Formats: sequence, structure tokens, C-alpha cells
Amino acid sequence: MNPSNQRLIYRKNLDANTTSGLCNNYLQANLITLPKQYAFEFLLFCQRNPKSCPLIDVLEAGNVTPTIADADIRTDIPKYRVYENGVFSKEVLDICDVWEDDFVSFLIGCSFTFEKALKRAGIRMLHQEQNKVVPMFKTNIPCVKAGIFEGNMVVSMRALKQEEVMIATKITEQFKTSHGIPIHIGKPEEIGITNIHAPDYGESVIFDEKERLPVFWPCGVTPQNVCLHAKPTIMMSHAPGHMLITDRKEEYNSF
Amino acid sequence: MNPSNQRLIYRKNLDANTTSGLCNNYLQANLITLPKQYAFEFLLFCQRNPKSCPLIDVLEAGNVTPTIADADIRTDIPKYRVYENGVFSKEVLDICDVWEDDFVSFLIGCSFTFEKALKRAGIRMLHQEQNKVVPMFKTNIPCVKAGIFEGNMVVSMRALKQEEVMIATKITEQFKTSHGIPIHIGKPEEIGITNIHAPDYGESVIFDEKERLPVFWPCGVTPQNVCLHAKPTIMMSHAPGHMLITDRKEEYNSF
Repeated sequence: MNPSNQRLIYRKNLDANTTSGLCNNYLQANLITLPKQYAFEFLLFCQRNPKSCPLIDVLEAGNVTPTIADADIRTDIPKYRVYENGVFSKEVLDICDVWEDDFVSFLIGCSFTFEKALKRAGIRMLHQEQNKVVPMFKTNIPCVKAGIFEGNMVVSMRALKQEEVMIATKITEQFKTSHGIPIHIGKPEEIGITNIHAPDYGESVIFDEKERLPVFWPCGVTPQNVCLHAKPTIMMSHAPGHMLITDRKEEYNSF
Repeated sequence: MNPSNQRLIYRKNLDANTTSGLCNNYLQANLITLPKQYAFEFLLFCQRNPKSCPLIDVLEAGNVTPTIADADIRTDIPKYRVYENGVFSKEVLDICDVWEDDFVSFLIGCSFTFEKALKRAGIRMLHQEQNKVVPMFKTNIPCVKAGIFEGNMVVSMRALKQEEVMIATKITEQFKTSHGIPIHIGKPEEIGITNIHAPDYGESVIFDEKERLPVFWPCGVTPQNVCLHAKPTIMMSHAPGHMLITDRKEEYNSF
């Protein structure tokens, strides 16, 4: 399935599952949409926190068409979340009803982009095998503040065999706009994660803790966590794990 | 003279000359200050035009102290320019009178930062020898638009011997936040410069055109040119060639 046809399925509300594993090697993106009054401070937040918030596109006020995808960002994502005054309000299949002409949209790289490259190197993606949304956790790693936007980083977790960790690091190092190398390996309690089987976003994935280490990458859901503190009047995002699939291929060297 | 003492001279209005050649190897910066309503689109403009506008610091609304210099950006630059509705209004020694609490300030890297490195490699800086403000020119090279901000790039010019061009390129490649490598070499008419002795900013520098090539670097005065079209109600900047000297040393490998 090419990105264009896959997005059409979402536009018609024919599917609302996770995009992990879909449209191999096409760059996937997190969405954050905010009223223009918050746009400067949020753009600055992204610039100051490039690991969790690597910007790949910014749509100016009212614009719904990214430069990196022939898409309508109001309809072409499988599932959205709406936050009002910092509180999760609802999950919806499109955001046409709440759309305003002064909304600015930010597209942030996603770790789903490098999963195909990891699989090609023989690394199993257990969340895909178990049909789960990748597990994501709030951490105690502080972001750099920008205006009202401050808070801790969210990370995604994949459990790898120890010999796979270096290979995964070498591969993901090349995916700079998709979070790059892991932020932490093996000791979730050190970054404030108390229960590896109770993720804050996504779903728990079963793995053999004797055989595998939990490996954590910075995650584009970070702004949804930061939003809880910043309390913008309204903020829209993709539902975690349900990304915008773009038309851009991310190139890398295999190992 | 260290940056702190040099800035004190400007704060006391004891000198208002070009900062080229002062405080060797300390990063020098262009200043753009705008009301917050323009901050998002200008930040996006910088992000989309990193060659001419490499951001090295952003001071949030009302803040006057950069993170990279223990300075007051309203007073510690030798000379400022004020633009109103896109028209140059006046040149002043400080901007305290016009300061408002919602002003956002942007510091952009400056090619003066790499001049000491070029001199160390034996490359003469003719504008310094002739006590001139480095010549700067408007070009026909378009910037990438962001909101109201659009227009052509401004470049600074240094005349080099042909064998120095590759050395200068190798050196300035390392100064990524100070515009990096040249944008054009040797054919000013190709980038819309009709008279190499009539710069749009700074002063004309005499050189032997049989012996030397004009070499052009992207310039942080670009926003002052772009502003003519964008027409923000008010915009403040350093006077071209009269930079903020920061406390940060820029490291590089000599050749």
C-alpha cells in the first residue's frame, strides 16, 4: 500500500489502527495543532528539544496541506486526540469540526520510520508481532522550557537482545529526524519508569526479561505530556501510535 | 579586551565602531527584536533559512539577557537600527526608549566570528586593514518564505586570492552557526550585484581585481532586507557591522 492510498483509508474512516509497520520506509509523523497564539513558544520548544521533537514540517496558520505529504492533516490520520485547557477531551476520527483558520500545525518525526530498517537487520519488533500499539512512558527526563511549554520527555520502548542494541544504535543514528539514537538502555527505573508493563500511552508488550533489554527512544508524544502543564485552550494531536504517513522516504545505509 | 569589558564600553556609549576584529574567536551575533505577534513567523523564517539566519539564541518576550552573553541586549551593542512599518527610522546607541515588554529577540550568527581563523591561515581581511565596515550586498537569491517574511538574501564580501578560496571554504565549513561556507565565488553579477564598489550596507573596500576574487557569505543582515517587505510595526536590529559580542568561544580546527 502506498502512503496516498493508505491515507485515503483514514480519510474515509475505514480503519483506525496503529500505523506501525505500514508503508515501509516512508517517514511517519506526529501531529500537534495549536492556535497561533501558542505557535511561537511551541516552535521554540521544538527547537530547544530536538531529540524528542525533531520538526519535519510546519504548516502556517490555517494551512492543512503539509509540504511532505499530499494530505489533509484534518482527516488523513487514523485517529486524533483533542485536549482542552490541558485536559484530554476526546478521541476522534477527524478534526474538521474543531478546525479554526488560525490553527498552526507541527509535524514531528516518529520512531516508526526506522522500524523497517531495524527489521531488515534481523531485529524483531515485538509490538508488531503482538499487534499492540508500541508502549510509551512518561519519564523523569526534563525538557528545556520555552514559554508555557515545559515538562518531561515521553519515550517509546522496544525490547531488544543485548547484541542487537549496538546495531539498533548504529542504524537509528542515521534517522536524525526520527529521534535518532536511544536515550536510555536497560534501567527503566533510572528514568522514572516504575512498571515496564504499565505504559502511559500505547499498550504493554510481553518480552523475556532474561533475554532482552528495554531500549528507549525519545518520543513525539512528548508535547502531549507537556501540554498537560501548559494548558493551551485547545490542542489537537494524532492519537499515540496513529501517525501521519508522509510521501517522503527516509534514506539510510543498511548494516 | 574580553567581551564583558568591550560590551561595557558600548553600554557607556564610549565607542560605536564596527566590531570586526574585536575579541578574537568569540562568537559575534546579529540582533533582530520584534513584537511577539511576529515571533512565530520570524522564528520559522530563520529555521527555513539556516544559511543566512543561523539562530544561536532566542530571548523570550521581554527578556533582555541572552544565555550566551552576560549582557543587556538593549544597550550592549555599539549601534542599533530601528525600522518602523518596514522603513528605516533611525540609528541609535541603545534601544531602551523604544523597548516594550512583549519584545522577542533573536540572535543570529555572524561571519565576523570566523575572521580570526582566516587571518591565522594567512588570509588578509582587507576591510579591517582599510578600517571599513565589511561590504554587504543585496542579492537575487530568494529566501524561503515564512508568513509575512520573504525576500532576498544579503551577503558579506571578502576579496581573496584564488588559492585562498579553498582554504577559506575548509575553515568556514566548521563555523556552521556563523554562516558556514561561501554561497558564491567570483561572479557577483550572477547573484544580482552590479557594482562591487557600491555595497548596500557597510563600506566599499578596495582590492586588486586581477589578483583577488570577491567571495560572498550569507549574512545576518538578511532579515533587515526582508523586513522592508514584511513591514512589521516596529523592528530593531544592530547596525550592520556592529554586532553583539558574546561570551561563547567558537571552536574550530586550524589548517
